[in-house]
Amino acid sequence: MSAVEMVEVLRGPLAESRHFGHAVICDASGEVVESWGDPDQQILPRSSAKMLQALPLVASGAADAHRLSTERLALSCASHQGAPLHNEAVAAWLSDIGRSEEDLICGAEPSRDKDLRLGMIRRDEAPRRLMNNCSGKHAGFLTLARHLGAGPDYCCPDHAVQRAIKSVFEEVTGQETPGYGIDGCSAPNFATTMHGMARAMAFFASAETRGDVLSRAASRLTQAMIAHPVHVAGQGRACTHLMQAAKEPVAIKTGAEGYFIAILPERGLGISLKIVDGATRASDCAIAALLVRLGVLDADHPDVKRFMNPEIRNFAKTVTGEIRPKADVF
Amino acid sequence: MSAVEMVEVLRGPLAESRHFGHAVICDASGEVVESWGDPDQQILPRSSAKMLQALPLVASGAADAHRLSTERLALSCASHQGAPLHNEAVAAWLSDIGRSEEDLICGAEPSRDKDLRLGMIRRDEAPRRLMNNCSGKHAGFLTLARHLGAGPDYCCPDHAVQRAIKSVFEEVTGQETPGYGIDGCSAPNFATTMHGMARAMAFFASAETRGDVLSRAASRLTQAMIAHPVHVAGQGRACTHLMQAAKEPVAIKTGAEGYFIAILPERGLGISLKIVDGATRASDCAIAALLVRLGVLDADHPDVKRFMNPEIRNFAKTVTGEIRPKADVF
Repeated sequence: MSAVEMVEVLRGPLAESRHFGHAVICDASGEVVESWGDPDQQILPRSSAKMLQALPLVASGAADAHRLSTERLALSCASHQGAPLHNEAVAAWLSDIGRSEEDLICGAEPSRDKDLRLGMIRRDEAPRRLMNNCSGKHAGFLTLARHLGAGPDYCCPDHAVQRAIKSVFEEVTGQETPGYGIDGCSAPNFATTMHGMARAMAFFASAETRGDVLSRAASRLTQAMIAHPVHVAGQGRACTHLMQAAKEPVAIKTGAEGYFIAILPERGLGISLKIVDGATRASDCAIAALLVRLGVLDADHPDVKRFMNPEIRNFAKTVTGEIRPKADVF
Repeated sequence: MSAVEMVEVLRGPLAESRHFGHAVICDASGEVVESWGDPDQQILPRSSAKMLQALPLVASGAADAHRLSTERLALSCASHQGAPLHNEAVAAWLSDIGRSEEDLICGAEPSRDKDLRLGMIRRDEAPRRLMNNCSGKHAGFLTLARHLGAGPDYCCPDHAVQRAIKSVFEEVTGQETPGYGIDGCSAPNFATTMHGMARAMAFFASAETRGDVLSRAASRLTQAMIAHPVHVAGQGRACTHLMQAAKEPVAIKTGAEGYFIAILPERGLGISLKIVDGATRASDCAIAALLVRLGVLDADHPDVKRFMNPEIRNFAKTVTGEIRPKADVF
């Protein structure tokens, strides 16, 4: 099945660009409740898989052995923007486990916090690994590696950390992974299908109803994200503002190349969404529209409108167009 | 007809994202020689229309009355990157016509020249209108407005400058325009079809064979672009490097939202290309692939490879994937 037109970009009265995508809603049994496009489409979930990558951290007992706070659990699932809040929290975490910024394999990324980024340019300071949006995930990897007594090369696909992740990834997606790509932070990112990813999210959404170790870990991670939306992304970011605007507790997480997921614990539903061309402007809009349709978000909430119906302004600040969900799709 | 898959984005062995588009090649008679997707698709050509917007500047006699150099004609068609070369050239041009930066309606844009941009942040200097990628086009508008004795509001659709542009736009596209959007620089950007835009580019490509005023203006603008590829965009930009790498004289010009055109004077052919989702990474790749197929570019040239087959590197500088044309499309 072909991807479905989900988002249109208007300039004046004219539709200038269009974005197509796939989306799947799964229930706790792993069955598809509703879908758009092709549920069997193979995808890389990118950072939308961070909760899956954090599962062994909690399920192994490493998180409790290191007394990780719920803020740190949220950071382990985060694509944060490298604001001082995030950088300081990750630095303290690394210190507590006897590791430092130099142990992070994620590479240095300029902070996406505007004041910090501009200040660093003015002070001629180089970007830092702590500011990499994945530094919390990597602090989690280092915590698990230490707990397992494993070596420092924790992004190697053969490392105990990544083998543990692959195992739970296949368990909760219900599929053998066909392979992986190397992510922006150098960690393997395992492939699955749209259905597999929605099934995994439904596993998280329904975890509270089960008592097994993996389900309890999934529930704790979901609750940590819901409790600390600013840790998951940051001010001005879709994940954070949509979670804060939601009418019921929900975890929402973006991934690079137009990926998005949502975990709806009160309904036991998991959602996966992929914009085929990889555009974030479209995945922000489409996930908001899908959650509005489900009644999780209110279309009139200003923090929903800014992602679902953002204005396009030009250099002179004139409104020249808008991004909007395609009518009657969601 | 639906858009055609033109570009794929790979991460490791997996195709992660895909870009679809339309493309049309027209000959001097305005007939479609070859097409992909829908030649009747309505589009906004954005900055790919700058040569059309500069036609009245030359055809009216304004360019000669103000002794515009070929560098200035190239700048009138440019989406330059606000490097010192461009900013100084536009400032001198404005001075020569008794106008200043304050007369530009285009809005202030941060320079895309990295050294200048970072230097301005360090010196706490605000972005300037001169650095707007369209400042050369606007200097052309101001020159024409002065020549016509028209007022300062030269981006108003009713202004003599914009009426002149609409008239030639409809003449060379061979179609009545269905409307316009307001561009990033506040000028009206008239809509046409993929075929209309390719026909207009073929008008430019074949202009040298005709003696009428509009054709002579089109030929001069094309030759100015070919003579000054750095003025048209800048170091590191696809337009500039693809023109420099071409095996025959060719004008190549990007537009926002995934638009691209090419003018092939030696063949009398015009090309229009639109990536449906608006991604520049895909339009850079697709226009290069199309010109390779025609024998205008050499696929092994490093300045072609960097746009047609760019590597994707992550924060740790590891190669994680590549962008490439879809096999057997071009």
